Amino acid sequence: MRVLGIDPGLRNLGWGVIDAEGSRLTHVANGVCHSEGDDLAMRLLSLHTQLSAVLRQYAPDTAAVEQTFVNKDAVGTLKLGQARGIALLVPAQAGLSIGEYAPNKVKKTVVGVGHAAKVQVEHMVRMQLPGAVINGPDAADALAIAICHAHYARAPGVAGLYEKKVRA
Amino acid sequence: MRVLGIDPGLRNLGWGVIDAEGSRLTHVANGVCHSEGDDLAMRLLSLHTQLSAVLRQYAPDTAAVEQTFVNKDAVGTLKLGQARGIALLVPAQAGLSIGEYAPNKVKKTVVGVGHAAKVQVEHMVRMQLPGAVINGPDAADALAIAICHAHYARAPGVAGLYEKKVRA
Repeated sequence: MRVLGIDPGLRNLGWGVIDAEGSRLTHVANGVCHSEGDDLAMRLLSLHTQLSAVLRQYAPDTAAVEQTFVNKDAVGTLKLGQARGIALLVPAQAGLSIGEYAPNKVKKTVVGVGHAAKVQVEHMVRMQLPGAVINGPDAADALAIAICHAHYARAPGVAGLYEKKVRA
Repeated sequence: MRVLGIDPGLRNLGWGVIDAEGSRLTHVANGVCHSEGDDLAMRLLSLHTQLSAVLRQYAPDTAAVEQTFVNKDAVGTLKLGQARGIALLVPAQAGLSIGEYAPNKVKKTVVGVGHAAKVQVEHMVRMQLPGAVINGPDAADALAIAICHAHYARAPGVAGLYEKKVRA
């Protein structure tokens, strides 16, 4: 099963692809989509184009997107929401099932504790994906989300194993 | 010039299309996209599909999206942001210029005062688009946004006449 993890952000949207066979995880690729353009609509279009290309290139079987912190300022939340809309739309357009995981759930799954520091998460991602060259913290977060999703979604279609999806 | 106005929302996304020739406005169509699906990603995909169909059917020359209130609760702001990401993406994918207008700007342009009540806005939309059958308040808001954009964007390409776009 090939898993795409996405760490949504308007300026930098991290992504990571891993293969999961049973409990064995293999790194495939990771990167960051940097939004380009003079205005918000063009930046969202740029993210959509880049993330769609990632899906075409790596053809994941399932995807997971980090649930967003909503305790930051309203303007930041709105921007993040707009980017997150794209992060959810692109795998939905490809017909993928999409898991959503809270940051603490991701940390607990990858590191073992829910309040792990960013550097611990990245360390554990490197441990679990030996040989991976990680393109910065947003890509590391995306790989962590993919690892978390691989853990909970090992049997696609078995709804009980999925993290409960967030209802709108 | 054919103008599409969009009032973004996750459950109900209002849209309105008008033709503007000089100061003469003509109603073309209006409606509401209701998001369908069990989870957030499916609802965003549903909005994307429906709004894309509106663009294909009515082929507007330019679009405008209401700038969002960000003073509501964070969860609501995040949901609205996700829907707004789709509202901006769809016209950008069609290569349209996109104006963004604050609610007060729309009210001031359509009614004459920035703090007009919703019922006043709908009344003035009916006055300016005689014969239009309006599909509820979200569609009325979308038509108001289209009227506002027609007012400021009568000469496409003349950047100075556009409402300043919101930079991300």
